[in-house]
Amino acid sequence: MNQPAGKPHQLTEVSVLGLGAMGSVLASTLLDAGRSVTVWNRTPGRAPELAARGARVVDSVRAAVTASPVVVACLLDHSSVQATLGPVADALRGRTLVNVTTTTPNESRALASWAADHGIDHLDGAIMAVPAMIGSGTGQIFYSGSRAAYDRLQPTFDLWAASEFHGADAGRAALVDLAMLSGMYQMFTGFFHGAAMVAAMGMSAPEFAARQAPFLAAMTQELAAYAKVIEGGDYTVPGQQSLHFSDLSHLVQASAEEGVDPAPIAAVQTLISREIAAGRGEEGLARVYEGLRAGGAA
Amino acid sequence: MNQPAGKPHQLTEVSVLGLGAMGSVLASTLLDAGRSVTVWNRTPGRAPELAARGARVVDSVRAAVTASPVVVACLLDHSSVQATLGPVADALRGRTLVNVTTTTPNESRALASWAADHGIDHLDGAIMAVPAMIGSGTGQIFYSGSRAAYDRLQPTFDLWAASEFHGADAGRAALVDLAMLSGMYQMFTGFFHGAAMVAAMGMSAPEFAARQAPFLAAMTQELAAYAKVIEGGDYTVPGQQSLHFSDLSHLVQASAEEGVDPAPIAAVQTLISREIAAGRGEEGLARVYEGLRAGGAA
Ligand SMILES: NC(=O)c1ccc[n+]([C@@H]2O[C@H](COP(=O)([O-])OP(=O)(O)OC[C@H]3O[C@@H](n4cnc5c(N)ncnc54)[C@H](OP(=O)(O)O)[C@@H]3O)[C@@H](O)[C@H]2O)c1
Ligand SMILES: NC(=O)c1ccc[n+]([C@@H]2O[C@H](COP(=O)([O-])OP(=O)(O)OC[C@H]3O[C@@H](n4cnc5c(N)ncnc54)[C@H](OP(=O)(O)O)[C@@H]3O)[C@@H](O)[C@H]2O)c1
Repeated sequence: MNQPAGKPHQLTEVSVLGLGAMGSVLASTLLDAGRSVTVWNRTPGRAPELAARGARVVDSVRAAVTASPVVVACLLDHSSVQATLGPVADALRGRTLVNVTTTTPNESRALASWAADHGIDHLDGAIMAVPAMIGSGTGQIFYSGSRAAYDRLQPTFDLWAASEFHGADAGRAALVDLAMLSGMYQMFTGFFHGAAMVAAMGMSAPEFAARQAPFLAAMTQELAAYAKVIEGGDYTVPGQQSLHFSDLSHLVQASAEEGVDPAPIAAVQTLISREIAAGRGEEGLARVYEGLRAGGAA
Repeated sequence: MNQPAGKPHQLTEVSVLGLGAMGSVLASTLLDAGRSVTVWNRTPGRAPELAARGARVVDSVRAAVTASPVVVACLLDHSSVQATLGPVADALRGRTLVNVTTTTPNESRALASWAADHGIDHLDGAIMAVPAMIGSGTGQIFYSGSRAAYDRLQPTFDLWAASEFHGADAGRAALVDLAMLSGMYQMFTGFFHGAAMVAAMGMSAPEFAARQAPFLAAMTQELAAYAKVIEGGDYTVPGQQSLHFSDLSHLVQASAEEGVDPAPIAAVQTLISREIAAGRGEEGLARVYEGLRAGGAA
């Protein structure tokens, strides 16, 4: 199945630009499903096993772009996408570009506008998965941009992970993705902080994780109740945990006293004490959401 | 069963000081189990239903303390415990004091040392539950201090929630409790932050919660792997997500661009970029734990 890189006009279904940890798994999953795939990577020789399994390996971006009607970009960041695609805008005309490189919403929007200017059908993708999850039935990928392209390609996308379309604004997939990751990184940091606090008393990190993981998993059930309060917009409805009750001064203080940097929990306490200082101490903890939405100006 | 408050020397098994949301449920659960209970609250008349169900209600701290060999304090904070118990130290001598009021580890240690000075057997308790969870088989209460008192009273404590003893250092229960809560509050704040970000694109908080809750619950499974790396102490072992990969500059930037206060996620990014700046960008994300343990001086 291995095909010489030299044949310029042989057509494949999908071209993948970027064979890092994620791009190579995306290409590999397509090959598993019997799709014909052309691959390119800036540094050559990255994916001998893809070639062995039938991928057509080309040594220029232009050859990769012209090989398929659908071009998937999985590069490091927005600027590497600009550097890679800028010179081949003409070759992309009339094709579909799916950029799954991690970008900010505004970067996705900028690429969408560039694509529109060049007659390129564009979708932005945001991958909620690590490479090992691709093709395994776990993980999700969010898309936004061209609805027509999404409808056409969803069967292909579903080979990678559960696909979800978030609208014509190309920035939306990245926005939902980043919003989801914000919670994850704050949760992980909370765990690191808690583990550092109990380390001071000799409890090991695995022992702490064994307590913290089921506790946090159970506490995710509270999110729906907070969301309901937020949607209602009335932070005085009964049954809420008040901001006064949520005051974390003692936690910040204990962290410092145990020699553990309180910065991440102090950032939370700053949001809470800002609301209390504004006279809202009897309102519910979810009021913090309004302070964040107000951009910190509350 | 209702007994007049006036009989000063009638003995009960447990006295509960403080009939707020938590104290009244602790007392009520003991009554449910057929225990004889004396209760006191600073503001009288707080718990008519406890009296109706057989609690002996007294109007002085001293009467409450002398009524039972075990005195449970569930007051607002450390200073209210000091103010309430300070004048009756002599009456507490030879009895067991279980303080389940939320305190910092050092406040618990201070009370332990005061109790030792006055011949009082002392246990500190940290409640990992809301009142509705008490007696329901969910929730946990951590204890530290007198091992003998814990062993004697565990059957009583188990009426409230799963009990766990954390050692003779009275500060330990509070430390584990605060460490667990650090993760919870950071997770909640992450959710509020993410919900604020997607609100900018018109996604409702309940819609976001429906995605975020199962995602975070699934991600709690990662904690064990991070803990293993922390225990091993080698942040260069393969298979980790690097600090470079975890760089959240784009998330901080996107939050600001959507008009949402990036402060809580910026605090996380500060920890990450501090490690990267120290030349550890290729090491795993769990390295943040070491930075926190170093008190922020890393
Ligand atoms: N891995 C994950 O868990 C994961 C999860 C979700 C999203 N993503 C996103 O997927 C994208 C790729 O991630 P990855 O894990 O595959 O990263 P990676 O293993 O570091 O690979 C980076 C890829 O980008 C290429 N590249 C870097 N700079 C370039 C430039 N200026 N011009 C052309 N190509 C360039 C690299 O080519 P060389 O080989 O020539 O360096 C390599 O193919 C990133 O945006 C990442 O955020 C990854
Ligand atoms: N509720 C929960 O979900 C929960 C969970 C875990 C831990 N806890 C901890 O349990 C303790 C009690 O919480 P709670 O929810 O019951 O609070 P609460 O409903 O606000 O009740 C506070 C209690 O403290 C008393 N009090 C306040 N200041 C006092 C003072 N200076 N002297 C004597 N008594 C004083 C109050 O008496 P008055 O009636 O006279 O004001 C009342 O009985 C707190 O430390 C809290 O952190 C609560």
